[in-house]
Amino acid sequence: MPTARTKVKRHPERGDYERETIDAILDESLICHLGFVVDGQPFVIPTIHARDGDTLYIHGSPGSRMLRTAKGGVDVCVTVTLLDALVLARSVYNHSMNYRSVVVLGQAVELTDREEKLRAMRRVVEHIIPGRWEDARQPSDAEIKGTTILALPLSEASAKIRTGPPIDDEADLALPVWAGLIPLALEPAEPIAAEGVHGSPPTYAAEYERA
Amino acid sequence: MPTARTKVKRHPERGDYERETIDAILDESLICHLGFVVDGQPFVIPTIHARDGDTLYIHGSPGSRMLRTAKGGVDVCVTVTLLDALVLARSVYNHSMNYRSVVVLGQAVELTDREEKLRAMRRVVEHIIPGRWEDARQPSDAEIKGTTILALPLSEASAKIRTGPPIDDEADLALPVWAGLIPLALEPAEPIAAEGVHGSPPTYAAEYERA
Repeated sequence: MPTARTKVKRHPERGDYERETIDAILDESLICHLGFVVDGQPFVIPTIHARDGDTLYIHGSPGSRMLRTAKGGVDVCVTVTLLDALVLARSVYNHSMNYRSVVVLGQAVELTDREEKLRAMRRVVEHIIPGRWEDARQPSDAEIKGTTILALPLSEASAKIRTGPPIDDEADLALPVWAGLIPLALEPAEPIAAEGVHGSPPTYAAEYERA
Repeated sequence: MPTARTKVKRHPERGDYERETIDAILDESLICHLGFVVDGQPFVIPTIHARDGDTLYIHGSPGSRMLRTAKGGVDVCVTVTLLDALVLARSVYNHSMNYRSVVVLGQAVELTDREEKLRAMRRVVEHIIPGRWEDARQPSDAEIKGTTILALPLSEASAKIRTGPPIDDEADLALPVWAGLIPLALEPAEPIAAEGVHGSPPTYAAEYERA
């Protein structure tokens, strides 16, 4: 159920509060935008996330200095957005985009337990590139200490989705203007080996795809 | 020059404060994430922007109800992020992403002048699909009134960029782990005509590309 803060007010028909919908968008997106407030000023920083059941892990290093100053949790907003198409209507006004977004509100806390941090790091890596964790050199204690992970419960979240063709005013339908969609997707290209790396890229890299 | 608020603290070598760099990232990105604060709670909402010289226009409808309550400007943070590659290092810890992001801080004001709003709407459409404005049915007075556009000066902005291969620890270079990049890009597909639309899509749709 939406809260007063997560209920979609503009275009309410685009709102979706099902966890299944929310989870699918969070799981597909490679990055999130983390919002937090310092001295009344909002900051929005791109970072990496991963979902673990009802918890959203956020790679917190980008804002860690600021976030660490908050004891016992800090109010954040985590937003992910997947862009699916440009929507060209006959009128300028009805132009739009097809997208799937999720907004999560809540208090983020920093993970301190070694095992919990390690579990979260694994989720983050496997979220981005399934199969990669086992292949790479595992984190040392110092590296685990040097990684900041925030945890945010998925208790206050909403999705907003636009799909389908442009919706023109009735009066515009006869205009001789091309209307429709330009689909968009984040597409991977051929992997590029680093210097000194021999052998073919692993399947999860060579056949990488999202969604 | 960076301010204390926009200076890149983590990975300072990735910071770039040149307007040319900042502008190129803003101009390539199709969406931005707008951060603002209501009663101490940060909100981050995806929306559309366009740059006009030293001004960043933001299609403000998503947060308009909240933003309108602020007289004389509201503190915002606008962030755009372009994802360029997944960076696979030999160690889990040195995994990264190649990206180009911009953070703009400042006070956004709502445009009220009809001509200024129309100019901003044109910039937004041409930012997304160059060539489209002239082809589509122009906005009526009611549509101009019904559109919320915020303006934010580009006076406090910074870019952060990671490029290049993974950077592994010296001790990890001999590990038998594939390392390298998986390049990523937002790619358009064939345009899909709306029902009742005849004729080929215009060149700017058929040959749409970003960057």
